[in-house]
Amino acid sequence: MSSTAGQVIRCKAAVAWEAEKPLVIEEVEVAPPQVDEVRIRILYTALCHTDVFFWEAKGQNPLFPRIFGHEAGGIVESVGEGVKDLKPGDHVLPVFTGECKECAHCKSEESNLCELLRINTDRGVMLSDGKSRFSINGKPIYHFLGTSSFSEYTVVHVGCVVKINPLAPLDKVCILSCGISTGLGATLNVAKPKKGSTVAVFGLGAVGLAAAEGARISGASRIIGIDLHPDRIEEAKKFGVTEFVNPKDHKKPIQEVIAEMTDGGVDRSVECTGNVEAMISAFECVHDGWGLAVIVGVPRKDAVFKTNPVNFLNGRTLKGTFFGNYKPRSDLPSVVEKYMNKELEVEKFITHHVSFADINKAFEYMLNGQGLRCIIRLDE
Amino acid sequence: MSSTAGQVIRCKAAVAWEAEKPLVIEEVEVAPPQVDEVRIRILYTALCHTDVFFWEAKGQNPLFPRIFGHEAGGIVESVGEGVKDLKPGDHVLPVFTGECKECAHCKSEESNLCELLRINTDRGVMLSDGKSRFSINGKPIYHFLGTSSFSEYTVVHVGCVVKINPLAPLDKVCILSCGISTGLGATLNVAKPKKGSTVAVFGLGAVGLAAAEGARISGASRIIGIDLHPDRIEEAKKFGVTEFVNPKDHKKPIQEVIAEMTDGGVDRSVECTGNVEAMISAFECVHDGWGLAVIVGVPRKDAVFKTNPVNFLNGRTLKGTFFGNYKPRSDLPSVVEKYMNKELEVEKFITHHVSFADINKAFEYMLNGQGLRCIIRLDE
Ligand SMILES: NC(=O)c1ccc[n+]([C@@H]2O[C@H](COP(=O)([O-])OP(=O)(O)OC[C@H]3O[C@@H](n4cnc5c(N)ncnc54)[C@H](O)[C@@H]3O)[C@@H](O)[C@H]2O)c1
Ligand SMILES: NC(=O)c1ccc[n+]([C@@H]2O[C@H](COP(=O)([O-])OP(=O)(O)OC[C@H]3O[C@@H](n4cnc5c(N)ncnc54)[C@H](O)[C@@H]3O)[C@@H](O)[C@H]2O)c1
Ligand SMILES: [Zn+2]
Ligand SMILES: [Zn+2]
Ligand SMILES: [Zn+2]
Ligand SMILES: [Zn+2]
Repeated sequence: MSSTAGQVIRCKAAVAWEAEKPLVIEEVEVAPPQVDEVRIRILYTALCHTDVFFWEAKGQNPLFPRIFGHEAGGIVESVGEGVKDLKPGDHVLPVFTGECKECAHCKSEESNLCELLRINTDRGVMLSDGKSRFSINGKPIYHFLGTSSFSEYTVVHVGCVVKINPLAPLDKVCILSCGISTGLGATLNVAKPKKGSTVAVFGLGAVGLAAAEGARISGASRIIGIDLHPDRIEEAKKFGVTEFVNPKDHKKPIQEVIAEMTDGGVDRSVECTGNVEAMISAFECVHDGWGLAVIVGVPRKDAVFKTNPVNFLNGRTLKGTFFGNYKPRSDLPSVVEKYMNKELEVEKFITHHVSFADINKAFEYMLNGQGLRCIIRLDE
Repeated sequence: MSSTAGQVIRCKAAVAWEAEKPLVIEEVEVAPPQVDEVRIRILYTALCHTDVFFWEAKGQNPLFPRIFGHEAGGIVESVGEGVKDLKPGDHVLPVFTGECKECAHCKSEESNLCELLRINTDRGVMLSDGKSRFSINGKPIYHFLGTSSFSEYTVVHVGCVVKINPLAPLDKVCILSCGISTGLGATLNVAKPKKGSTVAVFGLGAVGLAAAEGARISGASRIIGIDLHPDRIEEAKKFGVTEFVNPKDHKKPIQEVIAEMTDGGVDRSVECTGNVEAMISAFECVHDGWGLAVIVGVPRKDAVFKTNPVNFLNGRTLKGTFFGNYKPRSDLPSVVEKYMNKELEVEKFITHHVSFADINKAFEYMLNGQGLRCIIRLDE
């Protein structure tokens, strides 16, 4: 038992007081974990576009003040009542979607959308009592995705906490708790390209490049990367992407450009932008007869996917996935092991490091399309 | 060689001179088959909703005068140059979609959309020379789906002609050349429900009831039939459908009604209406995490499928299929054998018989939602 167990912890957190306003490092109070909850000392966190979308709150429900952050690694500080599988000192990754291991989804081989703990972007409180564990002078600060990793300490439902190999460097594997696993799994678990096939990846951020990495591991013969941002295209050259297309360089719809490049369309496509037009292009650019497209990007809440139904009749399939169809507690430790065994390179996704005090720089990098993942160090 | 080989044949055909006007039995001239073509004496034909859609030509490209018909059985009268696999006297089913056996689709295990011979609803002429084989006083009459079975003799590309067991009764198995195989295959080959699963079928015409039959064969525990037409619901009681829902009886969107009946949605759904709203409902009524919906209905050409992309992210899959993913020449003979072996009942789909002179009655039955398939006898 740590000396802080059962106590309120006062620590630093980066609070988003308003949409699109720089985060402010504040001293917050973090309540002890309740039944089935775990309090984690966060050592490293990264920024994913999903944080940015909800911070911008354009086309998403605004909820402020809020502590964002969901790609992170840390160490268990204390556990609440009923928590059996974790103890103080365990190295863990908090995940935005959980696994209760008891519901129909957790029991199904096909689904990772736990009935109880699946991603919920609108909830800003803990499940057990509908309250926040964060406060400043008694005023609650909302949680984000049940993880809120932009805080030195955070409280997470045990079903969203993944115990990993303590030898794994947390400053690297922290990014496996969202973006990289999401992109990799979208390809390996959902798109499942056959050896020699053609794959298009829309959006060359960390998620998209991890999807491209999945295509490379699967033995794809051509990996076509699509992005609006020339810097991202530069970055992507270090990855397995074999061809680049910038929709801005073409007058035609990009699905037509890709169909022409590939004699009718790609075998698989993975959309990692969050833009609904890109989702439509990603679907319509797959080959008729056998093409399969996978949506990964999180759209605006009023987004409408539109297509002529004949595109389906002509043998195209459309799927979507959260967290690359990995069940977090069951499957994520093995993704960490892939890194430990050098089957998966994580370093190349990490392009920036900042101190916690400089967290707003991470937002700037992402908004400017600079780099991929920025590690924010909370352990200094 | 029959005495008519190489000659123009004068025979009766039911010509659609204008959209929505009763067909007129005319004497037409049928030219001899050209390279890779087969001239077939049609003995029996049925009416499928696809004929009706293009005859109504609401929301489809109008092309008249035209000879409709594509669910049929007959006997080869003569063959054109280069035809090796068929000879006069063979019992055959013409099919609206073909199989060249040489293109990427024919070689792929996943696709039945032959590059050369796939369904083309707008073409009214033969592939080889862009001309029609039908004429009246020298004026060409257009083909439909490459089959035009509402004629005593028709000319079909060899890749769209399926040789079947000569013992199979053509007045029964003729309906396997479209609707029944389409619905059955949509379930068995595409939706693939597991034993014990729940299946919704939208549209209880012959195609939908064949899809329900596929669900019954797969061991589905619940088969929910949805139709707007009370008579169709009556008819469907003879099939394996276990529950009926008429959207007209509910104020809520039908996907919500089904989700409530099934604790979150069905495992599989198959849409067999052609109505885009039903396609959307069929997709949205499948369970998140693992649900799969299959579109079978042929939509209006300007139809737009719309849904919130989060429905995909939440683990739903959407597919579509022509002809139930059967490759006509490779697979249809085995569907005929299923009938011969009493594994598949075809008779219960046949609710009416009319003589060729009464072909317009078949249109009335379908437009009034009476019965399922009406066999039109040309052999009298
Ligand atoms: N489904 C999940 O489980 C899951 C998990 C993590 C992230 N996400 C989502 O994945 C998406 C990508 O995340 P990220 O962190 O890699 O973001 P990112 O901002 O680093 O990368 C997105 C890239 O998409 C490009 N882009 C935007 N619109 C485009 C368009 N119309 N065409 C082509 N390219 C376009 C941008 O230029 C950018 O390079 C986001 O929508 C995020 O919310 C989903
Ligand atoms: N994909 C293919 O290969 C293929 C092959 C054959 C037929 N089709 C199509 O399949 C569909 C069915 O053909 P059929 O011959 O069985 O037609 P049908 O007219 O006998 O049956 C269609 C049924 O759908 C019902 N319906 C219409 N709108 C509905 C709605 N909104 N909700 C619920 N029910 C509704 C009708 O009342 C009718 O009973 C048609 O669209 C046809 O063009 C497709
Ligand atoms: Zn993320
Ligand atoms: Zn669960
Ligand atoms: Zn048909
Ligand atoms: Zn072919």
